[in-house]
Amino acid sequence: MAATETLTAERILEATEEVLRRYGPAKATVVDVARALGVSHGSVYRHFRTKAALREAVTERWLSRTEVMLAELTGAAGRPAPEKLKDWFAALFEAKRHKAGDDPELFATYSVLIDENSGVVDRHLEVLVGQVRTVVEEGVREGEFTAPEPDATARALFSATAHFHDPAYAPEWRKPTVDAEFDAVVGLLLRGLRA
Amino acid sequence: MAATETLTAERILEATEEVLRRYGPAKATVVDVARALGVSHGSVYRHFRTKAALREAVTERWLSRTEVMLAELTGAAGRPAPEKLKDWFAALFEAKRHKAGDDPELFATYSVLIDENSGVVDRHLEVLVGQVRTVVEEGVREGEFTAPEPDATARALFSATAHFHDPAYAPEWRKPTVDAEFDAVVGLLLRGLRA
Repeated sequence: MAATETLTAERILEATEEVLRRYGPAKATVVDVARALGVSHGSVYRHFRTKAALREAVTERWLSRTEVMLAELTGAAGRPAPEKLKDWFAALFEAKRHKAGDDPELFATYSVLIDENSGVVDRHLEVLVGQVRTVVEEGVREGEFTAPEPDATARALFSATAHFHDPAYAPEWRKPTVDAEFDAVVGLLLRGLRA
Repeated sequence: MAATETLTAERILEATEEVLRRYGPAKATVVDVARALGVSHGSVYRHFRTKAALREAVTERWLSRTEVMLAELTGAAGRPAPEKLKDWFAALFEAKRHKAGDDPELFATYSVLIDENSGVVDRHLEVLVGQVRTVVEEGVREGEFTAPEPDATARALFSATAHFHDPAYAPEWRKPTVDAEFDAVVGLLLRGLRA
């Protein structure tokens, strides 16, 4: 197959995700990835020195897709901070729910990878909390929010909404009442932030 | 041993808890419980018709201890609802943290029992949410809280504080920053409830 194309890290990561989805995280090997790309496994190892490094990179890529999508919301100009914050948590919930519900095999695969790569996950959570902090600071500047400690406030907001992004709660995301519950929690938190 | 004492359900449950702690939930049997009490296993079965019924009853008893302790806080006269609510969540957190930290074997045992008895756990969570609702309604009556839907608000409060009572977060309860995080979350929620 496409062995004539330049073998980039991005192509290897795409193929790895597909191989993980197909064989499951316990069975997928670097040889499977090389075969899917029509290259030798040595070529793959030139980009990722170990199987663990490859698995870490694919986990990071998966999580960073959500970060990029959410950063577009925090960066949007001309929207009040309370609306931005609500939209941000709704988009995070929707992204997680979509990942868990529409492609459960890939979600289960990444659940295994996430347990293996706690450093990557910690960094991801810091990026998300940083995005929340940016919106909180913006709201304080515009006189919409009162938050003497924006960083602690951002962490509190992230913690208080765990039901709607922590994968441990994924089984509850199919309940018909979950959207009303989301609105009740986020509504209460936004009232708590009000200047 | 004390076979001359009347064999009550309460004595059987006490002995069962001790046997579960000693042998672990996978190995503990009704015969072990009968032996600890110095009675025949038939005598135990006269109170609890199956091993599953006995395990369910011991789970219920364990959870109801927390319910009784917390009900004393919600019932206290002459304290403003915001203080009551903060105390209630602090006491729930303290009880869970104490159970998880001071007797980890018993906590692990009950984690197994809880997975077996989801009906008992659902009822327990309804009791806890009902206690929160009582305080919310009190606060609305006294003009301290605004909450058009006290039941939905109680559920939102319970969901938003999951980090400080859901056993899934027990590993985080040892972090030195966890009390400051509790204060930040509960403070934000109380401001959101303010009339």
